[in-house]
Amino acid sequence: MNITTRGKYGLKIITDLAMAYGVGRVNLKSIAKRQGLSEHYIEQLIAPLKKAGFVISIRGVHGGYSLARPPDGITVGAVLRTLEGSLAPVDCLRENDATCGSADCGSCITKSLRVRRVKLRFPAIFNKAEVFMLEPITDKIYADNAATTRVREEVLDEMKDFLCENYGNPSSIYEIARKSKKAVESARVKVANAIGAEANEIYFTGSGTESDNWAIKGIAEAYANKGRHIITSAIEHHAVLHTCQYLEKKGYEVTYLPVDEFGSININDLRKAIKSETILITIMFANNEIGTIQPIEQIGKIARENGVIFHTDAVQAVGHTPVDVKVMNIDLLSMSGHKLYAPKGTGVLYIKKGVKIFPLLHGGAQERNKRGGTENVSGIVAMGKAVELAVSEMPHEIERLSLMRNRLIDEILRIVPNSRLNGHPENRLSGNINISFEFIEGESILLLLDMKGIYASSGSACTSGSLDPSHVLLAIGLPHEKAHGSLRITLGRYNTDGEIDRIIEELPKVISRLREMSPLGNV
Amino acid sequence: MNITTRGKYGLKIITDLAMAYGVGRVNLKSIAKRQGLSEHYIEQLIAPLKKAGFVISIRGVHGGYSLARPPDGITVGAVLRTLEGSLAPVDCLRENDATCGSADCGSCITKSLRVRRVKLRFPAIFNKAEVFMLEPITDKIYADNAATTRVREEVLDEMKDFLCENYGNPSSIYEIARKSKKAVESARVKVANAIGAEANEIYFTGSGTESDNWAIKGIAEAYANKGRHIITSAIEHHAVLHTCQYLEKKGYEVTYLPVDEFGSININDLRKAIKSETILITIMFANNEIGTIQPIEQIGKIARENGVIFHTDAVQAVGHTPVDVKVMNIDLLSMSGHKLYAPKGTGVLYIKKGVKIFPLLHGGAQERNKRGGTENVSGIVAMGKAVELAVSEMPHEIERLSLMRNRLIDEILRIVPNSRLNGHPENRLSGNINISFEFIEGESILLLLDMKGIYASSGSACTSGSLDPSHVLLAIGLPHEKAHGSLRITLGRYNTDGEIDRIIEELPKVISRLREMSPLGNV
Repeated sequence: MNITTRGKYGLKIITDLAMAYGVGRVNLKSIAKRQGLSEHYIEQLIAPLKKAGFVISIRGVHGGYSLARPPDGITVGAVLRTLEGSLAPVDCLRENDATCGSADCGSCITKSLRVRRVKLRFPAIFNKAEVFMLEPITDKIYADNAATTRVREEVLDEMKDFLCENYGNPSSIYEIARKSKKAVESARVKVANAIGAEANEIYFTGSGTESDNWAIKGIAEAYANKGRHIITSAIEHHAVLHTCQYLEKKGYEVTYLPVDEFGSININDLRKAIKSETILITIMFANNEIGTIQPIEQIGKIARENGVIFHTDAVQAVGHTPVDVKVMNIDLLSMSGHKLYAPKGTGVLYIKKGVKIFPLLHGGAQERNKRGGTENVSGIVAMGKAVELAVSEMPHEIERLSLMRNRLIDEILRIVPNSRLNGHPENRLSGNINISFEFIEGESILLLLDMKGIYASSGSACTSGSLDPSHVLLAIGLPHEKAHGSLRITLGRYNTDGEIDRIIEELPKVISRLREMSPLGNV
Repeated sequence: MNITTRGKYGLKIITDLAMAYGVGRVNLKSIAKRQGLSEHYIEQLIAPLKKAGFVISIRGVHGGYSLARPPDGITVGAVLRTLEGSLAPVDCLRENDATCGSADCGSCITKSLRVRRVKLRFPAIFNKAEVFMLEPITDKIYADNAATTRVREEVLDEMKDFLCENYGNPSSIYEIARKSKKAVESARVKVANAIGAEANEIYFTGSGTESDNWAIKGIAEAYANKGRHIITSAIEHHAVLHTCQYLEKKGYEVTYLPVDEFGSININDLRKAIKSETILITIMFANNEIGTIQPIEQIGKIARENGVIFHTDAVQAVGHTPVDVKVMNIDLLSMSGHKLYAPKGTGVLYIKKGVKIFPLLHGGAQERNKRGGTENVSGIVAMGKAVELAVSEMPHEIERLSLMRNRLIDEILRIVPNSRLNGHPENRLSGNINISFEFIEGESILLLLDMKGIYASSGSACTSGSLDPSHVLLAIGLPHEKAHGSLRITLGRYNTDGEIDRIIEELPKVISRLREMSPLGNV
């Protein structure tokens, strides 16, 4: 954090102490008196200055203080850093300019910096307490909200209490434990309300991945006697796909439904795939890469008609698109906290009352004996708050994000030749943009965007590190080379119209630069 | 939270509904009118009363409500608990005393309780809304550090950055993601250093329970071809025991080694239990209830000599007693963050290089492809910091806590007749005290201690809610009645000598009071 000062300024304390340098000392009382500050204030100020080696105490009958070295070697910056921690002063070159320091300081030669008043711990050390922070105007644009999200302030506020204050184990019986138990139960109600469930159908887990693993393995085990056939789709998250592949090794049969060019499954395919041994349909609510929303209500209806249990990975959906487990006939539903402004490490599995399931984590009696492990109270509280906020703001956010999304898609496709939208044009998450650019690599786009302060992704964050093209893009029929050159931009509640402008300005430049460099790019 | 009422009081709503009992009904409007409350208020109030079975709705032209059972069977307490959640009324024995209910109620016979006005959700149901909470005057003593711990300020400071600032997904490639990735890797090094492991042998999980489940199921699956015999002990945490029982249902054979009166396993028993089909020995490092530390180094040696994999649940040990996976020949080790001042929802599994294991959570490529799910970055950072601090302060803390522990044990056993220490006299966690008091129930001790502001437990927090006596105390040979009357006090870094004084003062009083009340207590 950089700061600057405006107007004439001096370090009053230092001036005072400088008087004593080499010749004597000043005592606390006299500094306090001269500066109109309390002795306690001065004392608090001197302690860090002493620790940093600027000031020494002089013992003796009356005691006192002096600078430890020549006053001209002590800069405003050094004292500020000592007293104010992370603040690092920079020079504002238009000192004494009356317009400087105001929010609209147009004359600031640094231009890319924004001026904001700083709250100092020790403002009184300055003759004029006018210290301003300079922060970059060119803020980063976080456009990867499907990978993870920033924790909301309101969410952080609620969870903090349960880290250092009401930190009791909800299974204990004393006061702080009862408070954390109550908070967990209140969060459970909030989550239940968000998806039309009952509170006792909500189970807190450690992640969306755990929820998916639990749902699929837990049902597979509990209903193994009924049959060993599972239906899923080709574009599921790896938490579902890899779990299904694991079950295949255990003797289960898995049908992977194909999707059309937009990423939608075909309802007739699903109907045909159901057999008497089918125990589970697990199809994601909305795809994490291309944003396509599946016909969940129809899937639920078919599942119900055929007496098959229906699980949906709704990690990308809850809080982003309407979800109602009753209306949609959903039997199990996975959620994740960190996709909706709660911290990482929190998940939920909704399990409809009456559905049998084996535990995944054996242990204590937590979560109605179904999921062992001390409850992550602060995470659960955060999840409850975040879900509640997300669902209440959803109608407005869907409208706002869809407008930004559509503008971004339209402009990029218009400006950049040989680009195409991946995913469904309408049944699509309101924040999701996924575009393929021919002749280039997604990875290179990301690197150049990163240098411009734009954070996006080439697909799922969970598959990074792998050189394979996205299984989702292959499933919608993209050839390998196009699947490699795709960019995912996912917008969220902190994105602004101004940021969309900047992406529209920067992205086409990045693409043409990369194409110029590419041997295939000169088309 | 206990509450009391002052003066004459009655339940206005109940009185009103009682009029209708058996003979008719009253409708919302009439109740609201008679009581000067809004219909909405009454409606909100009736809903939980209906749910709890006190009130029934009567259908018909005008509709209405009546009590569901005779009014004299409905107590103030029962209604309060229904409406106000955790409030549990207690009788104030000086009803009608004018001084009672004021903060300086010197005549309160409970003495150690402070009287405070309660903010009720539904104050208007009382004729006189004078309901007071009784709370301990004295400061709280948290002495249940084996159940969970308070997050340290230093730990909170480090983790905060990764919630709202560097919140990137470690699998992404841009700046804030690289920072969180770096933080995760730095935490991994810290955890590795704490137990003498390599960083690439550390896997972050969501809890100690997950680590235990993963270790045991993952090894059982990976080595099923070699054999299906597992050796554990009778006093393991339920995360281990229930996982073993689950595997028994899957066709594995499990040997549960007995323990002696101090809770130690016998090394010769272990040696004899090993067969050619034995694939895993899983024995806890230190017991969560009685604090007994097992001869881990000897167990490791035997496991190594016999080519059997050795897992230890070290949730209570790391940061509390020296652990070195190399010296002790440990192949897998489970840890939990919230037992050493990190938040709940963080765990670690150490897996020695070369040991094959199946994943428990299938999904993304995180944790070297072995544990799917976005990393709980803030939790992992917290865990790293907390482990580092705990291990560096351990020698000093062990000394400090052992002194406090020994003083507490000696004094309580000296003062309270018919009390005995559970667990090992020497090979014992430095913060653990577990004492059985004859003729009384552990639960009652906890309740009275809670009223004195002392938070302790009767055993594992994870088994609360169950009426069964502790399996650990039964395993060390305690008869049922003694196992029921045990108290666990677990000290940690925030406990002081002064608090030990207070426990020594209060606990014997609590015990004698309970024994006076008990039919068995007049010894």
